[in-house]
Amino acid sequence: MELGVCYYPEHWPKETWRPDAVRMKALGLSWVRIGEFAWSRLEPRPGVLDFEWLAEAIDTLGAAGLKVVIGTPTATPPKWLLERYPDIYGVDAQGRRRGFGSRRHYSFNSPSYWRESERIVTLLAERFGAHPAVAAWQTDNEYGCHDTVRSYGEHDLREFRAWLKRRYTTVEALNVAWWNVFWSMEVNSFDEVELPNLTVTEANPSQVLDFYRFSSDAVVAYNKMQAEIIRRYSPGRLITHNAMGFFGDYDHFKLAHDLDAITWDNYPLGMLEESPLPDALKAHFLRVGHPDLISFNHDLYRGVKRAPFWVMEQQPGQVNWASSNPLPAPGAVKLWSHQAFAHGAAVVSYFRWRAANGAQELMHAGLNLHDGSPDRASQEARAVADELAGLTPAASQQAPVALLFDYENLWATNLQRHAKAWDYWAIELSYYLALRAFGLDVDIIHPRMDLKGYRLVVAPALHLVDEALATHLEDYVAAGGLLAVGPRSGFKQPSNIVWAPAPGPLSRLMGVRIDHVDALRPGISGSVTLGGADFHYQTWADLLSPTTAEVLATYQTPAYAGVAAITRQRHGQGACVTIGPWGNPALHLAIFSDLLSQTGLPHDLLPDGVRLTRRGGLTYLFNFNPHQAEVAEEAIPPHSVVIRAGVDG
Amino acid sequence: MELGVCYYPEHWPKETWRPDAVRMKALGLSWVRIGEFAWSRLEPRPGVLDFEWLAEAIDTLGAAGLKVVIGTPTATPPKWLLERYPDIYGVDAQGRRRGFGSRRHYSFNSPSYWRESERIVTLLAERFGAHPAVAAWQTDNEYGCHDTVRSYGEHDLREFRAWLKRRYTTVEALNVAWWNVFWSMEVNSFDEVELPNLTVTEANPSQVLDFYRFSSDAVVAYNKMQAEIIRRYSPGRLITHNAMGFFGDYDHFKLAHDLDAITWDNYPLGMLEESPLPDALKAHFLRVGHPDLISFNHDLYRGVKRAPFWVMEQQPGQVNWASSNPLPAPGAVKLWSHQAFAHGAAVVSYFRWRAANGAQELMHAGLNLHDGSPDRASQEARAVADELAGLTPAASQQAPVALLFDYENLWATNLQRHAKAWDYWAIELSYYLALRAFGLDVDIIHPRMDLKGYRLVVAPALHLVDEALATHLEDYVAAGGLLAVGPRSGFKQPSNIVWAPAPGPLSRLMGVRIDHVDALRPGISGSVTLGGADFHYQTWADLLSPTTAEVLATYQTPAYAGVAAITRQRHGQGACVTIGPWGNPALHLAIFSDLLSQTGLPHDLLPDGVRLTRRGGLTYLFNFNPHQAEVAEEAIPPHSVVIRAGVDG
Amino acid sequence: MELGVCYYPEHWPKETWRPDAVRMKALGLSWVRIGEFAWSRLEPRPGVLDFEWLAEAIDTLGAAGLKVVIGTPTATPPKWLLERYPDIYGVDAQGRRRGFGSRRHYSFNSPSYWRESERIVTLLAERFGAHPAVAAWQTDNEYGCHDTVRSYGEHDLREFRAWLKRRYTTVEALNVAWWNVFWSMEVNSFDEVELPNLTVTEANPSQVLDFYRFSSDAVVAYNKMQAEIIRRYSPGRLITHNAMGFFGDYDHFKLAHDLDAITWDNYPLGMLEESPLPDALKAHFLRVGHPDLISFNHDLYRGVKRAPFWVMEQQPGQVNWASSNPLPAPGAVKLWSHQAFAHGAAVVSYFRWRAANGAQELMHAGLNLHDGSPDRASQEARAVADELAGLTPAASQQAPVALLFDYENLWATNLQRHAKAWDYWAIELSYYLALRAFGLDVDIIHPRMDLKGYRLVVAPALHLVDEALATHLEDYVAAGGLLAVGPRSGFKQPSNIVWAPAPGPLSRLMGVRIDHVDALRPGISGSVTLGGADFHYQTWADLLSPTTAEVLATYQTPAYAGVAAITRQRHGQGACVTIGPWGNPALHLAIFSDLLSQTGLPHDLLPDGVRLTRRGGLTYLFNFNPHQAEVAEEAIPPHSVVIRAGVDG
Repeated sequence: MELGVCYYPEHWPKETWRPDAVRMKALGLSWVRIGEFAWSRLEPRPGVLDFEWLAEAIDTLGAAGLKVVIGTPTATPPKWLLERYPDIYGVDAQGRRRGFGSRRHYSFNSPSYWRESERIVTLLAERFGAHPAVAAWQTDNEYGCHDTVRSYGEHDLREFRAWLKRRYTTVEALNVAWWNVFWSMEVNSFDEVELPNLTVTEANPSQVLDFYRFSSDAVVAYNKMQAEIIRRYSPGRLITHNAMGFFGDYDHFKLAHDLDAITWDNYPLGMLEESPLPDALKAHFLRVGHPDLISFNHDLYRGVKRAPFWVMEQQPGQVNWASSNPLPAPGAVKLWSHQAFAHGAAVVSYFRWRAANGAQELMHAGLNLHDGSPDRASQEARAVADELAGLTPAASQQAPVALLFDYENLWATNLQRHAKAWDYWAIELSYYLALRAFGLDVDIIHPRMDLKGYRLVVAPALHLVDEALATHLEDYVAAGGLLAVGPRSGFKQPSNIVWAPAPGPLSRLMGVRIDHVDALRPGISGSVTLGGADFHYQTWADLLSPTTAEVLATYQTPAYAGVAAITRQRHGQGACVTIGPWGNPALHLAIFSDLLSQTGLPHDLLPDGVRLTRRGGLTYLFNFNPHQAEVAEEAIPPHSVVIRAGVDG
Repeated sequence: MELGVCYYPEHWPKETWRPDAVRMKALGLSWVRIGEFAWSRLEPRPGVLDFEWLAEAIDTLGAAGLKVVIGTPTATPPKWLLERYPDIYGVDAQGRRRGFGSRRHYSFNSPSYWRESERIVTLLAERFGAHPAVAAWQTDNEYGCHDTVRSYGEHDLREFRAWLKRRYTTVEALNVAWWNVFWSMEVNSFDEVELPNLTVTEANPSQVLDFYRFSSDAVVAYNKMQAEIIRRYSPGRLITHNAMGFFGDYDHFKLAHDLDAITWDNYPLGMLEESPLPDALKAHFLRVGHPDLISFNHDLYRGVKRAPFWVMEQQPGQVNWASSNPLPAPGAVKLWSHQAFAHGAAVVSYFRWRAANGAQELMHAGLNLHDGSPDRASQEARAVADELAGLTPAASQQAPVALLFDYENLWATNLQRHAKAWDYWAIELSYYLALRAFGLDVDIIHPRMDLKGYRLVVAPALHLVDEALATHLEDYVAAGGLLAVGPRSGFKQPSNIVWAPAPGPLSRLMGVRIDHVDALRPGISGSVTLGGADFHYQTWADLLSPTTAEVLATYQTPAYAGVAAITRQRHGQGACVTIGPWGNPALHLAIFSDLLSQTGLPHDLLPDGVRLTRRGGLTYLFNFNPHQAEVAEEAIPPHSVVIRAGVDG
Repeated sequence: MELGVCYYPEHWPKETWRPDAVRMKALGLSWVRIGEFAWSRLEPRPGVLDFEWLAEAIDTLGAAGLKVVIGTPTATPPKWLLERYPDIYGVDAQGRRRGFGSRRHYSFNSPSYWRESERIVTLLAERFGAHPAVAAWQTDNEYGCHDTVRSYGEHDLREFRAWLKRRYTTVEALNVAWWNVFWSMEVNSFDEVELPNLTVTEANPSQVLDFYRFSSDAVVAYNKMQAEIIRRYSPGRLITHNAMGFFGDYDHFKLAHDLDAITWDNYPLGMLEESPLPDALKAHFLRVGHPDLISFNHDLYRGVKRAPFWVMEQQPGQVNWASSNPLPAPGAVKLWSHQAFAHGAAVVSYFRWRAANGAQELMHAGLNLHDGSPDRASQEARAVADELAGLTPAASQQAPVALLFDYENLWATNLQRHAKAWDYWAIELSYYLALRAFGLDVDIIHPRMDLKGYRLVVAPALHLVDEALATHLEDYVAAGGLLAVGPRSGFKQPSNIVWAPAPGPLSRLMGVRIDHVDALRPGISGSVTLGGADFHYQTWADLLSPTTAEVLATYQTPAYAGVAAITRQRHGQGACVTIGPWGNPALHLAIFSDLLSQTGLPHDLLPDGVRLTRRGGLTYLFNFNPHQAEVAEEAIPPHSVVIRAGVDG
């Protein structure tokens, strides 16, 4: 468990580098990320390279005992490069070229940009790959930020057609897979396929889903290209990329496959402000963020590679990019740092060393103020470093519960919401919140990953399924596992064509048939009876027709009163529970209380805003409330954490 | 009164066609619409026609005793055609080409598309026109859906200029008619006229109104072209087009002139969800829709040709296209079917036989589920068929009340709303609701249609008027009619230039002068005294200065307290009532109670959600509430209808 | 104090001109503005001039004893001109050409348009410059209306690059000023600079700020070109331009420099409707507008030249362009007219003489109705004329309080709001309201203007500062002045780069350092203790670290309880008060009560909706409420004014 910081030597006079490095070390930092936006300084003009300053910076940092992460500078190609190769620019869904003047002004499908990216990454890796202070690399920066995964230009179209040809071989197969007979959308050659933007009304969802897959694959391939170059010239160094919170435009499981570790950028206050949470929660957690929004991402990125992750950028104070940007509470930076470690982080790296004096992020705080003097976060980082010294967690263990997350299900359900409030992230979070309220540690993993060892596996919306996945889940249950699947599960094939009837190959495991769903407008709720008590749900309800399953709960909603709402089907040594409605929090607590009781896992309900996390023998109790909390006979001050060794609360 | 269904043989294996046809017949269906999106199967490649499958489908359906409606496939030209003639694509108001990948990707002003449409319609009509099973034709599908009436490309501009030249002959006449002297908008030739999009601020409303007329005329002409081809090759068959609810981008009176019958597509739940009704009403009528939203369209489309209409597509279950899509209540399909017949439908045809397994509408229900087994609506359709067998209405009679509706008034008032909440549909509906609450049957007709026989004629906003219309209305009133006109009546000439003073030629009949109007922001209301009681209004108030009219009500609103709000002017044997304010429901009930008393028509107020409709000796009592209703000593269960023969409630 | 009217002889038959002129004179009007949209009549075809009708109109008006203001017609170039020079069109931020069909369809950076504007203005000035009836000129009309200051076409880009080259000389200097090292935004030549639209995410704020300056300068230069031509040919006539309310896209201080007087167009009801004021205030002031919204603009435009201003267009009844357009209250026109004079207007000119019968503004009232008969406003204008006869104010005096307003601070803070509700206009207004509630007259002036004589100078957000400005303010305070600065003051250099630490050169005067700010979402407030009482604030709070200042108030907000919120620093004979939070109205009243007490200025709190204004020995008491008000032992009827001579309330 180490700390780090993001540093931009190119922003500051050379004479400050050494004192900066010394102070970093003194604060207890071990890692420094540099270089990821510096292309215009590394190659100021066509063919004119200037790597000397970077070499000096690395030397300086290394001399102070710091380990360096080099970021490849491909998120910000310089203007002269765009002048030479204007095909690099991406095109937005409205058909407009997205111009120069900020960052990420490139399409992943531009051949020029692939070639230029290979060139600059190769030059950097050749030059610095073997430097003793260089201990890790970051490819590019925040792939997809500002809606840049999907681009709608001519290169994108050409590559999309090529991708489709690889996927379907014949155009007849594509027409079948997309059900193109509908509305005469059939094409006679791959060259007749268009991008799914600017259609008269919604495009074919099968086409859109494939376009999302194609766009995700382009990111993965581009990243793999960078990673392979670096691996060739810089063996033994960790290669990573910094992902973002609640960002799903590409498949992070696939991206992570080509990396040594995944990292992500944790901005709790901006994340809360831009979230769909109600105003009352935004007010309550104003200055520390919502604990589960944050840890959902920790648990997801830990799950993406089933390995320790990093927080590559940790909010150190006020950010600049949310619609409103409050000051964090005193102690918030410390709270966030320990929370990351508790959820499995190997490194927490603050963004940034010193606040920028100009340009887009001048109102973003750093560990130091604009004038270079220490900001509050310096003290908190120092305190974290001190506390880490006393904590040595054992190797992380698998959590008792797995929450299944699949980017393809995110894409497929969110592009056909059917109910205005449907959102895959939101239903995933609603299950996660219930589990976390009961103090459970949760692994967020892909449905096709190995499920052995989990006492409970839950899938809020296991939408796209095939025979192989059904068999995989049956194996888990047959061996004694408890699987709970939520609304919209088993509805479609991977092509986005429905299973008729639903839930297709999951029928054996779920023991139900689903012919009808209800999709409710915001403000409308339905009711369900579970264990003799009444509960409410909203947005979505699958109506279950049990074939072999037993009924655990029934709907009371007049239009379908008496229909099964929750069922259980025994299978081998285990069981599968099907949850039809998207419950409100009370219903979810009731459901998960039942499920957890079946597993025998302890699950005492925690006070609101209090969270419990375990890591390798350490137990963390977090209080995200602005008031003191009492839990397990422990008083936890506002906005703080209590860490116990060897105890399992 | 017959039932039908929409069927897509091209979506399903050939071996299912015969059993499907047999089951259709067994359900009591008489009509089957086919073919309207099948161009890519009828002509899979340039010049390669394949009509055999369609012939076989028609034979199969005919053999089962079903009557076939062929839809021309022009709503979905295939991709190869667009590749050849890219000028077919429409252009949106933002100047972007609207591309391939859904439907309706054509401009009505593309010469290529006219030529290709003539070709395919001729080929189809030649081949199938005389087939004994072919009993009707539908031109295209839902003209204008997805905002496709108005297109802003070069063909549209060229045709708009030609249309203006035909209308005005000289550019001087156009400059006068548009008042182009204002802001130096004068043009020196028709070639200097532009389309009214992408102007710096709002375009000249006279120009916009003419562009709307031009665009509507283009739809009418295109439809007439198709109808004439079909009539030539398929004599004696009914020719129709399926319109939509609350869609006014073209003039349906003009379109209907070239058709044998008008049909429309009735989706009560999507219509409610997308309506501007308040949330409480959306909740109350969640699973059956609002009765008056539905029947307003029935009465309008019956009035458009003053003849029986069809429901060509009747919602049979959940739809997929509203922002939220609830399950209909049990009984809803039966309720909607009988309601359509009560309001004069000749045929109700369900959309669609079997739910689509892929593409855009895969979450749209049919009479059968995705796997082909019967869905709930099959049972309800069968029940309707049984009940229809016992009902033989006499020929329809004219209703006692006419509500005047004019697409040009819709365009002219909605393009200059003046008050944010102004909406021509909404004020028409507000009058319609009051009349329906009193149990009155209503014909919705064009102001220039024959008005003989109506006890009451009401015009919520008779905005554009000329001398001929004034004389027409005077004749009606002079002969003993009672005419009531609402806000914004008599304000403008057809050119959109004002009458100075208003109400221009209607002054004689209304007996008032209108120099001022009030246009209120949402949330603000004014008050009026009528018959000693106080009422409220919102959004709009015409301030009436009686010249010869008597005052029935006065405003109490401080800024113009004491000014006349409602007046009556006797004329010949009848009278004209002028209603200045856009009343809230209570004021409208009071006004219509007075008006109906003057006519001697019975008008007992019905309970909320209960509606009474008469057709040829049959009386229908509908209860759209989710609870039982008591009316006329009859208990009507929730979501159901009671039909009596020979009784006049 | 004179009255006038806007007149469009080209809209009406020639035979009406003389009777119109006679009636104008009889109403007590002295001024008539004509011609500003008449280009298509002055030059109907290329090279074909027709100035005769205008000559005749001027003669007719002059003969009736009226003074004429000629408006140059450049706001509406005719279509034939655009056909010849399509480069005239502006381009919107989305990259779309903004077409013909309304007005202001030109870019200030089009060389063709400069040349054509010079030509037509020269022709007009030559012809009419010496006409005895011509007493004034208006350049163009409402520069910037409909978002036309900033254009994003190729001419705009070329001129922007040239402007930058003049400003920075070398590209290195530009890269430094913009902090382009951030995100590799560095350019190697001025030809690599792009416009700041259509970037992937927000553009560099330094670039945006410079683009705003450049765009403002283009307006100023274009106006100067017109003014200089007119001055050459029409010596001795007043040259003006009509600005708009709450419009800040160009720097009015700079524009006014080239004019003899500034005028503005006062539409109180549209201004209220489109303002961000809460619904309750919009309801309360529905029919007269909010007094302070109106007079803020009076005081600003008086301050822009520190000279009497005109209201060139005064709302005379209902307008057409707000989202809802209520009728004004009886007396409103009179109220608005006197209010303008009270705040220093030389002339109030009503828009327009007769309502337009067609085109975009046909629902806009005039002094006369569509048919030419007098509308209500005629009577009120006549009454104003009569009352003005009895009022002879002495020369205006400087107000005791100055409110500092700087368009560059408007641009710089609003382009980086940081808190969603941040708005420079709103915080300026919040200080203005408090001062006006205490009955203070206020000059709104530029921070760099001479401040001598003010008892109090307040700057709500003195954001961009340099050493010269700091010295200027120090001189004012040192000589005994009281300066109060609000949130975000001293944060940045004019380049938009931060002062590190803030408040930069203002530190000496403010005696504080500001390392942190809080930026709160709407609905969240913080608390502060001032003089023993608790108050609330919202949106923004600067956290003050006093270096030498004394603390007047402290924050109670938990995250920074005890931090200084308001401080005072003595300097020479005076003092500077720093206000950290953006207070709610109660806090602002408390703060200004304290400040005013320090100045010794009387400041009794007025009732809501009542306002007191002094001008040259006259005292005006305005009651904008819809009910009677009691103030200073005077009963003021609703919506009316009491004017006393020689009394200082």
